Amino acid sequence: MRCGAGIDARQVNELFINIDPIQAGGRLTCDAIKAVIAYGDGYSVCDNCRKPNRLDYIAKPPIAEFHKDVASWLNMDTARVVPGARRGFQAVAHTFVQKGDPVLLTSLSHYTEFLAVEGAGGVPREIMADANHMITADATAAKIEEVKRETGRAPVLAFIDHVDYQYGNLHDVAAIIKVAHQYDIPVLYNGAYTVGILPVDGKLLGADFVVGSGHKSMAAPAPSGVLATTAEHAQKLFRTTAIEGDVTKRKFGIKEPEMMGCTLMGVTLVGMMASFPHVKERVKHFDRELAHNRCVIDALRSIDGTKILSEYPRKHTLTRVDTTGSFDRIAEIHKKRGFYLASGLTDRGVTGVIPGATKIWKFNTYGSTQKQVEYLAAAFVAIAEENGLRITR
Amino acid sequence: MRCGAGIDARQVNELFINIDPIQAGGRLTCDAIKAVIAYGDGYSVCDNCRKPNRLDYIAKPPIAEFHKDVASWLNMDTARVVPGARRGFQAVAHTFVQKGDPVLLTSLSHYTEFLAVEGAGGVPREIMADANHMITADATAAKIEEVKRETGRAPVLAFIDHVDYQYGNLHDVAAIIKVAHQYDIPVLYNGAYTVGILPVDGKLLGADFVVGSGHKSMAAPAPSGVLATTAEHAQKLFRTTAIEGDVTKRKFGIKEPEMMGCTLMGVTLVGMMASFPHVKERVKHFDRELAHNRCVIDALRSIDGTKILSEYPRKHTLTRVDTTGSFDRIAEIHKKRGFYLASGLTDRGVTGVIPGATKIWKFNTYGSTQKQVEYLAAAFVAIAEENGLRITR
Repeated sequence: MRCGAGIDARQVNELFINIDPIQAGGRLTCDAIKAVIAYGDGYSVCDNCRKPNRLDYIAKPPIAEFHKDVASWLNMDTARVVPGARRGFQAVAHTFVQKGDPVLLTSLSHYTEFLAVEGAGGVPREIMADANHMITADATAAKIEEVKRETGRAPVLAFIDHVDYQYGNLHDVAAIIKVAHQYDIPVLYNGAYTVGILPVDGKLLGADFVVGSGHKSMAAPAPSGVLATTAEHAQKLFRTTAIEGDVTKRKFGIKEPEMMGCTLMGVTLVGMMASFPHVKERVKHFDRELAHNRCVIDALRSIDGTKILSEYPRKHTLTRVDTTGSFDRIAEIHKKRGFYLASGLTDRGVTGVIPGATKIWKFNTYGSTQKQVEYLAAAFVAIAEENGLRITR
Repeated sequence: MRCGAGIDARQVNELFINIDPIQAGGRLTCDAIKAVIAYGDGYSVCDNCRKPNRLDYIAKPPIAEFHKDVASWLNMDTARVVPGARRGFQAVAHTFVQKGDPVLLTSLSHYTEFLAVEGAGGVPREIMADANHMITADATAAKIEEVKRETGRAPVLAFIDHVDYQYGNLHDVAAIIKVAHQYDIPVLYNGAYTVGILPVDGKLLGADFVVGSGHKSMAAPAPSGVLATTAEHAQKLFRTTAIEGDVTKRKFGIKEPEMMGCTLMGVTLVGMMASFPHVKERVKHFDRELAHNRCVIDALRSIDGTKILSEYPRKHTLTRVDTTGSFDRIAEIHKKRGFYLASGLTDRGVTGVIPGATKIWKFNTYGSTQKQVEYLAAAFVAIAEENGLRITR
């Protein structure tokens, strides 16, 4: 089935249990699917754009209300939508980082945070995770002191991932932020794996900026995301344009340069909005997701030689496993080599594990039902047994 | 009909002839509608992302091929997709403009070009349009000389709109670029109203950068766009990341900082790709669009007191009219005041004219059929006649 010349219709989430680490939270809700059909056209949300002509002022569809709701849901003062979390990082870095400024990141930071720092000309300084792959408040304090010693000043900004993309570990952001604030360092809370997945209270955490990803964790089409901040920082981050034509003396009203004016003028925004009531509800039931995750983890742990590299017990459904001592041993002798694992999963209707990976790999059970995780758990065990790996129950 | 809590399903292009000035070229094709349904989920194009893990390398769906096709179609060396034309402006300005650098814009430049210059810290210097609202090569030369006289150096970059958003006039970009190049000023060709609408040959025009808008002119969902350049500039604009973790020594492969890594990871890109064969075909028939536009223009001109403010005969379907001497005279006495015009159009199944506007307003007939433009022409005349305006045939 095709949806254009050379483009096969995608049916991944219709035909498979999808445990892809980055896709789990971005699957559309039914309402979002209706929204993408109704709002697919280019500038589809601009029908009722009136003065002062800015996306977040549009009342129909209720974009203005959505902006207020997102800010209040995150317990922040004001919010904007952005074309992906990375564009939120970029806006914050561009506003608060000058060339040569030290910026705190961590050894688990996502590459897009590094790119945001690079774009602003900042100098990345990594807080190292400990032996358990956790970023701690102590390590944060030590790093800040190191930077001060070496450069004579504190970093100007910190990017802290509540849940990192590598291990899916849940770091103690509140404690880290407390330390950063002792040095007057504003903190960007990267909620790419949390906003839309579990409850996030920006003020409680002390975050200066909260960034979320629509396509990763808010059941929205790509590219989409949210950027929220406090009243204090909003003045600077969401400053309005000051540029003026030298001859015409034209000014450009209340457009915001960091947003490049309007951001998501159609399907991406309405998709996020349509999913929002469901997303607000689902974050309340993250314990159910963890229970589902545990079911698969238990099965994997029952396969002799398998290690869970993420913190255990799990506090997030994104999980990194090491099967060097189990599935990878078979890869050495299997006629399909390392591909037998993904292939065995595909045969069983499971997708999302990188074909060929049998050493260290990630998966995410977010959004899978009880029945699906039981099936998944059984699938992993069956592939192991079929290949002569020992199961310890 | 709703597609989510509080979100009415949009049926503008199903129920109306839509002459909104910015929406005409962004309506989805049937293939794009299929694509948004199939690829609505968050990271939907990433199923087959393999090393080196960059969007423009993905072979299935054929994203890599699409990138090559776009570059060759625009007769440029290389292309990327971006979340809207404005993000293309931003990337170019951020790469080539330093704080305090003079940058050429025009008195008809779009606000997003100004915002891009503002973000980079550049100083805008406007080339003024002449009495006919045309940007000329002579005015460009004069402005460059003025900037040189005043600042001691030439501007570092020029943003030139082939068709401007205010009048829809077609400016002699080739001649303007020739002048700019005499001063070694690279030129960004803003094709927001041309790429996807009429044939664009970047090399023939001499453009250093070609920017197009997916949601404005390539029948794609928002936010989307293209940014193409020459081999010469690509090295700088699409440089790969150089940042490195200070402790982990992590590097980030071939990700491009100006793109913030990957850009359109789902529905926006596949929508643009699905429409692309149709877009490539439709640009060959722009003469038909102009003929359709003429039909409506002739009708408007037949209403006594109406002036076409855009260049005439029209070379683009985006048109600015002044009805101060016709429709606006009625607004003074009509019980619906200025709203009678849009209301009269709505009653006749036409949308896209700002409610209340009866003085100076814009419309765009792009994509309307012969039957529709005849109907449109008759609708304007009927509203005029109904309100006692004189028609001169």
